[in-house]
Amino acid sequence: MSLIIGIDPGSRMTGYGIIEKDGQKLRFVDAGTIKTETTAMPERLKRIFAGVDRIVRFHGPVEAAVEQVFMAQNPDSALKLGQARGAAIAALVNLDLQVAEYTARQIKQSVVGYGAADKEQVQMMVMKLLNLSICPQADAADALAAAICHAHASGSMSKMAVLNALGGMARGRSRYSSRRR
Amino acid sequence: MSLIIGIDPGSRMTGYGIIEKDGQKLRFVDAGTIKTETTAMPERLKRIFAGVDRIVRFHGPVEAAVEQVFMAQNPDSALKLGQARGAAIAALVNLDLQVAEYTARQIKQSVVGYGAADKEQVQMMVMKLLNLSICPQADAADALAAAICHAHASGSMSKMAVLNALGGMARGRSRYSSRRR
Repeated sequence: MSLIIGIDPGSRMTGYGIIEKDGQKLRFVDAGTIKTETTAMPERLKRIFAGVDRIVRFHGPVEAAVEQVFMAQNPDSALKLGQARGAAIAALVNLDLQVAEYTARQIKQSVVGYGAADKEQVQMMVMKLLNLSICPQADAADALAAAICHAHASGSMSKMAVLNALGGMARGRSRYSSRRR
Repeated sequence: MSLIIGIDPGSRMTGYGIIEKDGQKLRFVDAGTIKTETTAMPERLKRIFAGVDRIVRFHGPVEAAVEQVFMAQNPDSALKLGQARGAAIAALVNLDLQVAEYTARQIKQSVVGYGAADKEQVQMMVMKLLNLSICPQADAADALAAAICHAHASGSMSKMAVLNALGGMARGRSRYSSRRR
């Protein structure tokens, strides 16, 4: 049984979601957003860092998942998003959490079973998988989806580790695994 | 008399420089680089955050200056640079430092007296202004240049504040001033 935090960083709004993984069972623990609009950039980064720091200290998750970004955007918005990601991930690694990155496609595939699923389908499946009666805010839902993806991935990784061990091929996992497609 | 830290963030190398400002006099205190090559991104951000955190805790600067980025780069490098900046600035604001941003042009104008100065001219003037007998590494020199620019700017801001006060026009400075051109 372990807690996983998912983060969906943004310069205006950073979503977070915490789930508990107990074998194959997933349970909702917490989700919400850190709002950072209408302030100067250093203050935004302070709020993101402090917000993630507070949530991690409160719940004590042991692993973290963040959506990996593939840019179709312009350099200016990439820089802004990068700064928000940098502050959020700094808060996670500063508290010694493992941070795994997943592409949007991997997350949709894992949560909906279809890599090109739309936002509404992801939200619906997040509600279904976590038995939620109300729909979480969009960024919080994305954060929960990242956490669910990580729960599924680490489940299959454990299975793989067992299979590898049986085959005499067990390999260590790097401390900060950064999974890329 | 106060200490100013300048930071030149990068995803492979983050330069830092600390100077002491005593009236119009500037004195070199420390400079160096945090190397982050050849590791995964979350680990890089951890090193940047921890490195800046350690330097600030050790020297206790009260103000910070960071070069503001105007992108001529592609979204991918903008995202990487943004993440490094986010982790570095998070470390500064997490310790309640004021963070001022200056454009490269403002820094060159302030240090060399010429906004289109080249890197070598900046390094030469940094050595001259701080009485250094050896040339600092390029990123450390850029960080020192940002700190010198801030020392000059806050000097003139103090003068402006006095003038404004005399004219009955004193205005408060925002807690995290983010100066843009």
